[in-house]
Amino acid sequence: MKFEAPVAVTEIAAMIGAALEGNHQLMASGINEIHKVQEGDISFVDFEKYYDKALNSAATIIIINKKVACPAGKALLVTDDPFSAYVSLVKHFRPFEPSSKPISDTAVIGEDTIIQPNVFIGNHVRIGSNCLIHPNVTIYDHTVIGDNVIIHAGTVIGADAFYFKKRKERAVMYDKMESCGRVIIESDVEIGAGCTIDKGVSGDTIIGQGTKLDNMIHIGHGTVIGRNCLFAAQVGIGGKARIEDNVILWGQVGVSKDLVIGKDAVVLAQSGVPSSLEGGKTYFGSPVEDARNKMKELNWIKRIPELWEKVMNK
Amino acid sequence: MKFEAPVAVTEIAAMIGAALEGNHQLMASGINEIHKVQEGDISFVDFEKYYDKALNSAATIIIINKKVACPAGKALLVTDDPFSAYVSLVKHFRPFEPSSKPISDTAVIGEDTIIQPNVFIGNHVRIGSNCLIHPNVTIYDHTVIGDNVIIHAGTVIGADAFYFKKRKERAVMYDKMESCGRVIIESDVEIGAGCTIDKGVSGDTIIGQGTKLDNMIHIGHGTVIGRNCLFAAQVGIGGKARIEDNVILWGQVGVSKDLVIGKDAVVLAQSGVPSSLEGGKTYFGSPVEDARNKMKELNWIKRIPELWEKVMNK
Amino acid sequence: MKFEAPVAVTEIAAMIGAALEGNHQLMASGINEIHKVQEGDISFVDFEKYYDKALNSAATIIIINKKVACPAGKALLVTDDPFSAYVSLVKHFRPFEPSSKPISDTAVIGEDTIIQPNVFIGNHVRIGSNCLIHPNVTIYDHTVIGDNVIIHAGTVIGADAFYFKKRKERAVMYDKMESCGRVIIESDVEIGAGCTIDKGVSGDTIIGQGTKLDNMIHIGHGTVIGRNCLFAAQVGIGGKARIEDNVILWGQVGVSKDLVIGKDAVVLAQSGVPSSLEGGKTYFGSPVEDARNKMKELNWIKRIPELWEKVMNK
Repeated sequence: MKFEAPVAVTEIAAMIGAALEGNHQLMASGINEIHKVQEGDISFVDFEKYYDKALNSAATIIIINKKVACPAGKALLVTDDPFSAYVSLVKHFRPFEPSSKPISDTAVIGEDTIIQPNVFIGNHVRIGSNCLIHPNVTIYDHTVIGDNVIIHAGTVIGADAFYFKKRKERAVMYDKMESCGRVIIESDVEIGAGCTIDKGVSGDTIIGQGTKLDNMIHIGHGTVIGRNCLFAAQVGIGGKARIEDNVILWGQVGVSKDLVIGKDAVVLAQSGVPSSLEGGKTYFGSPVEDARNKMKELNWIKRIPELWEKVMNK
Repeated sequence: MKFEAPVAVTEIAAMIGAALEGNHQLMASGINEIHKVQEGDISFVDFEKYYDKALNSAATIIIINKKVACPAGKALLVTDDPFSAYVSLVKHFRPFEPSSKPISDTAVIGEDTIIQPNVFIGNHVRIGSNCLIHPNVTIYDHTVIGDNVIIHAGTVIGADAFYFKKRKERAVMYDKMESCGRVIIESDVEIGAGCTIDKGVSGDTIIGQGTKLDNMIHIGHGTVIGRNCLFAAQVGIGGKARIEDNVILWGQVGVSKDLVIGKDAVVLAQSGVPSSLEGGKTYFGSPVEDARNKMKELNWIKRIPELWEKVMNK
Repeated sequence: MKFEAPVAVTEIAAMIGAALEGNHQLMASGINEIHKVQEGDISFVDFEKYYDKALNSAATIIIINKKVACPAGKALLVTDDPFSAYVSLVKHFRPFEPSSKPISDTAVIGEDTIIQPNVFIGNHVRIGSNCLIHPNVTIYDHTVIGDNVIIHAGTVIGADAFYFKKRKERAVMYDKMESCGRVIIESDVEIGAGCTIDKGVSGDTIIGQGTKLDNMIHIGHGTVIGRNCLFAAQVGIGGKARIEDNVILWGQVGVSKDLVIGKDAVVLAQSGVPSSLEGGKTYFGSPVEDARNKMKELNWIKRIPELWEKVMNK
């Protein structure tokens, strides 16, 4: 997430009560969790084993829980609880704005777009032209939707990322990471009924142009889906996955987080995808394998009794 | 879908700019995709390998992309792009009618039926008597619901079929088939919360009398479900399946499209049904098998290490 | 479910037209199906094989379809159809109250709780302070929600139990058990978008403090979930399960009814849990096994061709 205007690092330090190390002149341009960080951004780290990754990342300003050597040209914000400091910045720069009516006055809706009854459209939402939003759809704040998009009834766009920090020592163990990312639905996308597409933690969840989703599909936070993909009903995709163009997922397929499915891949129904898949192939199984190999394997299983007989009679 | 009154084939030809071959006197009684076509209907075909099927089907008027010999008593409408011509007819005869309020004035609702707040009921919907429609339900145009039906919150009845024509040569590859079918829910059906039941492409999706659906069940376009079926939560059924009476599907079962599950069949949880199943039996697995055979198979798998030992020590 | 004030057993007998046997002085304190019954409660039994269980249960008043010896200090209500008699009592003491507006005047909502537009809140609902209820959420009557609870859009809390009595002899075969239980969501819970959490048949469905649910999760009637559990998207849990503290269920896991998952258990994605699991372990597969054993098994399957070779060449 980028700020509307740069903010002085000294101001950030004051906000979160952190000791400022390194370059005091820096201006922060945005706030991002480590996987999405860009130059000028504030990020955070709270485990020593990730210090190097964070300090060497594109982040210009790092909230950290120990005073370490500050890389040249950067700034450190040293505080006991970087996670909470980061979350407080998210809340400050992207505060939740309650809505007093179903369609926010700050939403911008294009020409010839039809909004059916009982739809909720949050603050700062942008919807292009010639779209059709069916009843009881919920579109959270800051969502961006292109042209010629159809969204069927009951679908929810932009709910929070499912992302918590575990605090073993607390009675309430999971501490919520506030999300400040968005959902971007490109033009010519159709989304079925009862789908849920979560916003990114700090970056964007993107549904690429011309992609078609059937009903009850879940897309996790920050996942990026290419163009002209086709997902059948009840598919679920975890957070920060990348699904390239023309990928076809059949019904009830589950895809784990943080992986890539290559262009033109096809995954057959009910398969489970635990890690990245090369494009251009067909897959099946849970965990998934090359579909032909999987079919052979299923045949081999059927031959175990025959094999047993052979061994017994030898 | 049937027209309200027959339409002259000459008028249809003019609408879609097609060359008319064969019987010019015909009146079209409706429009149907090839799987649902009846005498008097218009249908379409755009692949040579399906020409014979289409020409020999019940369809009286066939939109086709090549001039061929017209079967006696029928008419051909020759045009470059039969799919688009067909879609334009669907849009003409079953245009989308935006709703300006949550419950359409053209909806007919029976005595003693309770409609809870925040429900959407579209145009030309018919709901019988003594029904209970819980909050945030969406009922699309033309849906027909019997008596004593309960629909729980958040359920969506009658969203569009998930059905596209692939146009490899286009940047936006999937071309939407407009659906003109309906959903018909017979009497004494109960539908859980968060379900989605899609309308047929041109025919009807039917939920038979006394069938009970748990939560988050997806029923694809044109699927016909018998009487007294029982489906547990998160079941998904593809398009144009036929599920006979008394079928029981346990949780998270996935059923593919275009198949039949016979009367009294039981499919155990998480199974995947890729093709038709005989009635009266119990099934398990993905892909599904006779449940007892599948259980034996799972036992055989556990004996592989024992078999390995035997072979090694012989 | 407990009555607001005790009701004389003679009055109950008159209501359902039953013959009263045993102690005529008793006062009934509530009504509960057999799994939830407490002293003072009315319950019912209609199969001879369950008579002993019902008569020896905590129930003080038993609706039964045959005159048998009445246990000391109890009362029997003898009637031909105990199920229907029981359902009629549920309807009498917990009648469905239609809502004329989206947020009932009898709902009590705590300080600093934000209710977004298009939310439905039923009668006698209690919501604590500092909660955030997103748009298009449905909260059925009698639901109880603690403090600091977040519920994302489209979620449905408190729909009816999926629970029917089979009447083979009737054309409409499944007879609805009316539910009079509630859903209780403890403090600090977050529930994702598009979830469904059903009320108990007569007891309560409980989501324990600090538990976090991702999107599209189904929780069946009367299921009790401990503290600090973490369930990923599209998990489904059947009725009357007990999930202890700190359990983690990954995406699309299915859990059967009437079982226990022990504290600190982890169940990997797409697994199916047919029966109780010991705590503190990691599980995988459908049906589920110890994850390491399951992984070994998957490796053994891959070695079948090698084993075949060995046998053939010996």
